[in-house]
Amino acid sequence: MTRWTLTPDRIPTAWFNVAPHLLKPLDPPLHPATRQPVGPEDLAPLFPMELIGQEMSAEPWIDVPGEVLDILRLWRPTPLIRATRLEKALGTPARIYFKDESVSPAGSHKPNTAVAQAFYNKREGISRLTTETGAGQWGTALAFACSQFDLDLQVYMVRASYEQKPYRRVAMETWGGSVVASPVDEPGHPGSLGSAISDAVRDCVGRADTHYALGSVLNHVLLHQTVIGLEAREQLELAGERLPDVVIAPCGGGSNLGGIAFPFVPDTGVRLVAAEPLSCPTLTQGRFDYDFGDTAGFTPLLPMYTLGHDFVPPSIHAGGLRYHGDSPLVSALVRDGRIEAVAYPQSTVFEASVQFAKTEGKIPAPEAGHAVRAAIDEALAAKETGEEKVILFNFCGHGLLDLSAYDDYLNGRLPDEQG
Amino acid sequence: MTRWTLTPDRIPTAWFNVAPHLLKPLDPPLHPATRQPVGPEDLAPLFPMELIGQEMSAEPWIDVPGEVLDILRLWRPTPLIRATRLEKALGTPARIYFKDESVSPAGSHKPNTAVAQAFYNKREGISRLTTETGAGQWGTALAFACSQFDLDLQVYMVRASYEQKPYRRVAMETWGGSVVASPVDEPGHPGSLGSAISDAVRDCVGRADTHYALGSVLNHVLLHQTVIGLEAREQLELAGERLPDVVIAPCGGGSNLGGIAFPFVPDTGVRLVAAEPLSCPTLTQGRFDYDFGDTAGFTPLLPMYTLGHDFVPPSIHAGGLRYHGDSPLVSALVRDGRIEAVAYPQSTVFEASVQFAKTEGKIPAPEAGHAVRAAIDEALAAKETGEEKVILFNFCGHGLLDLSAYDDYLNGRLPDEQG
Repeated sequence: MTRWTLTPDRIPTAWFNVAPHLLKPLDPPLHPATRQPVGPEDLAPLFPMELIGQEMSAEPWIDVPGEVLDILRLWRPTPLIRATRLEKALGTPARIYFKDESVSPAGSHKPNTAVAQAFYNKREGISRLTTETGAGQWGTALAFACSQFDLDLQVYMVRASYEQKPYRRVAMETWGGSVVASPVDEPGHPGSLGSAISDAVRDCVGRADTHYALGSVLNHVLLHQTVIGLEAREQLELAGERLPDVVIAPCGGGSNLGGIAFPFVPDTGVRLVAAEPLSCPTLTQGRFDYDFGDTAGFTPLLPMYTLGHDFVPPSIHAGGLRYHGDSPLVSALVRDGRIEAVAYPQSTVFEASVQFAKTEGKIPAPEAGHAVRAAIDEALAAKETGEEKVILFNFCGHGLLDLSAYDDYLNGRLPDEQG
Repeated sequence: MTRWTLTPDRIPTAWFNVAPHLLKPLDPPLHPATRQPVGPEDLAPLFPMELIGQEMSAEPWIDVPGEVLDILRLWRPTPLIRATRLEKALGTPARIYFKDESVSPAGSHKPNTAVAQAFYNKREGISRLTTETGAGQWGTALAFACSQFDLDLQVYMVRASYEQKPYRRVAMETWGGSVVASPVDEPGHPGSLGSAISDAVRDCVGRADTHYALGSVLNHVLLHQTVIGLEAREQLELAGERLPDVVIAPCGGGSNLGGIAFPFVPDTGVRLVAAEPLSCPTLTQGRFDYDFGDTAGFTPLLPMYTLGHDFVPPSIHAGGLRYHGDSPLVSALVRDGRIEAVAYPQSTVFEASVQFAKTEGKIPAPEAGHAVRAAIDEALAAKETGEEKVILFNFCGHGLLDLSAYDDYLNGRLPDEQG
């Protein structure tokens, strides 16, 4: 057997909170004006109290509400697949497993938190959400989630993606969301995640019916993604494996990596690897410091690896990884040596992605391709040493809405970045 | 529970052959030149002998080779999902189930036969296949299958789709296929499935290393799709249902409908419904007669419902349903009253598709939208009568590569057809 499914009643019913497993507690977010630690009341204009509570929680497990489970069960648990065809092509003794998050309605892992966030906002009486989106994966996920809870949604989409990737905009509109290009005040600017966050926060503040939703970075977002790693753990056991030797995920804001890797943090023998783009090398070349989450400085300051909140990454195809900062939880674990990071130029990512498509059948999203690249490199290293390594990676989404990137790669139009 | 999965070892290991269940045997295909019944040797330049045998077989069950099962298990069995959110939105007492074929690597049901066809060709020593594709679903499926068996592939893509839907072309190229616009000899012509078949057959004939592959219409193609209905039958039992009252599928060439409906043909109480586009109303307005499968008259004459092999359907978005003819098996069952047919204008199809996306989360391919439309109409009829009807339909593919069609619909740019 090469694919392990779980019936919908086997979905994890509690999220795994990594906070109690850190070497020391996170430093608190600071208020953008006063630079004093923010309290729940500072965040209340943006988020429902339940999410603020999760953001600051030290509880090891947090129950998933039944209403959220009901929707996640539309596609969860997702399959765990052993990439036997890829292994054979590589001639490696390693066993490569991937968690297939591409089977969600939005085609990525993002709905795992979008559904939870929409639920808590709805329960608090909110009728409208604002958000930003880069390549559009987060925006499509939240549009789907809002359609399930009958919430209005205003999406600020990074202009470069808005113009290059109209299909993701149409998907958001099909689910009922409204989409505008960001930055709204600078029509000629290609935009960035940081500036789109500024637009979305500005739209939210001061409207009592409206909250803001973020698709990565924050603790509660990563918490909601831990269903991925929890399921994978159970499925690896079904596959006859004890624990993986290495767990790999793409890393932009960190929710992808946090989702699959955090449940393995207590297992000190398991290596955890963040794969990021060389053109936006937050973890491998950034500094650990307090910085704003957005470009304009509206958000609290977070303790994280950052390239500087005014850093505008080049327009690579993995739009979901074009973020100047990184999750404070992931950053702390990198700083403390529990998570490793590696950076790749995008041409090597697409080379790996095409090999994956031809062997395993699924076309990776450019973000997912970073994990594929790292998994292949780990498997090739195992070939050198003859080690029967067990590799687990997060196949966080399919690339069916990113095929123009493959067109560029296949026709030699993909510029290679400098490190 | 609203989703029923089966573990990969529960995949059907034999295909269901509907031929023994017809009122009378099919009339044979006729040679295009002599108009005499064709024998296996006439088809040998196009197809491997194993598929020719299946084409003519009267055996009730045909074993699925292990090498084919190994690849189908990458995504099969597919889930059966109860559309409880859609039911609630409709206020219907009906129970609506759909088989989710969108989880395949190519995002549709087409790989079910593509994998089998690639396998039998490879085993007969063939190294190259040619085929046609309309919207691109069949071409992407065969490109995926050929990559699994290391076969070269030349795809003739209907020019209208080649120009409007570059993403599906890129998907085929990512899996290693070559794609050209058809008709190759008439650069200004939008093309049709019929003319693309002519191009693909012409490329194949006379090359010993090359065979031709068809994605629908023929008996062996529909045979390979019966895994859908066989799995659905088992999953409905898990869901506590005895048999469905009605089984619905989109119908272009017939493989979609044959796949889910044929295993229910012996159950005479189960209604079987073909949903086709009003702009290409083969079953509802065509005549039952011998006709060519292609425009140029290269293929054998088949006994089927047809609008005439020179009929060029308007450029609707459900490119996979733009075919002048229909499967002889489906045609015979319609003629004999076992299968009903209904036709819809595309605006009503997109209206239903958007309702489905907002309730069940998944965005239907325009082809799949025809079945969604029919299922909703059946459920609304049940609401009138108060009947607790069990509806099963084939969700044959997602619409993530067809979002320009949704853009047109949402912005009022979709012209409504005349019946």
